[in-house]
Amino acid sequence: MSSTLDLIRKRISANKFDRNRPLSQAEIRELVEFATQAPSSFNIQHARFVAVTRAADKERLKAVAYGQQKVADAAVTFVVLGDLRGHEKLPGILARSVQAGILDAKTADSWVGMANGMYANAELARDEAIRSASLAAMTLMVAAEAKGLVSGPMIGFDPEGVKRELGISDRYVPVMLLPVGHPAPGNWPRKPRLPVDEVLAFDRGREF
Amino acid sequence: MSSTLDLIRKRISANKFDRNRPLSQAEIRELVEFATQAPSSFNIQHARFVAVTRAADKERLKAVAYGQQKVADAAVTFVVLGDLRGHEKLPGILARSVQAGILDAKTADSWVGMANGMYANAELARDEAIRSASLAAMTLMVAAEAKGLVSGPMIGFDPEGVKRELGISDRYVPVMLLPVGHPAPGNWPRKPRLPVDEVLAFDRGREF
Repeated sequence: MSSTLDLIRKRISANKFDRNRPLSQAEIRELVEFATQAPSSFNIQHARFVAVTRAADKERLKAVAYGQQKVADAAVTFVVLGDLRGHEKLPGILARSVQAGILDAKTADSWVGMANGMYANAELARDEAIRSASLAAMTLMVAAEAKGLVSGPMIGFDPEGVKRELGISDRYVPVMLLPVGHPAPGNWPRKPRLPVDEVLAFDRGREF
Repeated sequence: MSSTLDLIRKRISANKFDRNRPLSQAEIRELVEFATQAPSSFNIQHARFVAVTRAADKERLKAVAYGQQKVADAAVTFVVLGDLRGHEKLPGILARSVQAGILDAKTADSWVGMANGMYANAELARDEAIRSASLAAMTLMVAAEAKGLVSGPMIGFDPEGVKRELGISDRYVPVMLLPVGHPAPGNWPRKPRLPVDEVLAFDRGREF
């Protein structure tokens, strides 16, 4: 088994998936369970997942994703969503932490007040939905890799078309499509990354 | 050494950091190198990192982060930025893939055209900067965990104040503060997560 650091270095964004190796619903549920472990603002957990597995539905999704074949070939293509009203669920979420003795009720109330104040701003609510769903998606990709699977995150799709085809309401922003499955031959090698010195500064910002 | 899947399940967002265990610049650079391995749209790599390590600078940052002590206690607090004009660097980035024989020049040109078309839209450019920087930040958190460190992602800060105090231009959107270091006693236990059935649907969207 590869170490975590090896997995991070070796991961590729896959385009070619083995059409003949499906994943069970239990395997798909397990991947999402790992994704839910990602951190989020106040533990709101904005990420939602539509796991598209049926051939006919994958074709409908492919049609609103510029015909990209990986959507149809992958065992599952997740539509990763961010809940624009995630903070509305915070009282119930924090009640579980209070019950577990992790948080006191007064702190929980103050967090709800802070979250309601912040996310009344629609831009901040959208930023947070995207950020939170992205953290969850990356966690899902790492978990998939650890299980010998590959993934190919995609932003090349028509978000309104995806919502229409799959019956997703305007409450949710589609943050990415994420095909996951076993690899087929012919994937890209890893693409070169920017050297650390081009992306890192110490103590003061600069023009990178 | 824990397995990757164990690391994902055990990770906590830390508030308490050991003030007496600094990280070297080499260790900080290595964490950022892992972060650069994250995927991004067209491989644009929008994420940038200001590693705040000096005591005086951490205090300045803490003052624009509602006085949260972890900013000052962590060995390093990263300001994770997203480049709102990341796509402008795409021709140079893809040239490296063309030189490496991974991509042909015609495909590279078409990607540049597509990216310029998409990210002329300011909302899409902002979404992408946040998404890409979040994927990199999650990768950094996983790498830190694998190296026995803890992290505490934060969105509770004044973004304009952070930019002003550290000399960060409007080209970059602060996506999160990310304190990283060795843990001190007194961290929260893991907070409960939503059950999979509350965040996952198969083949069709629904109200979650």
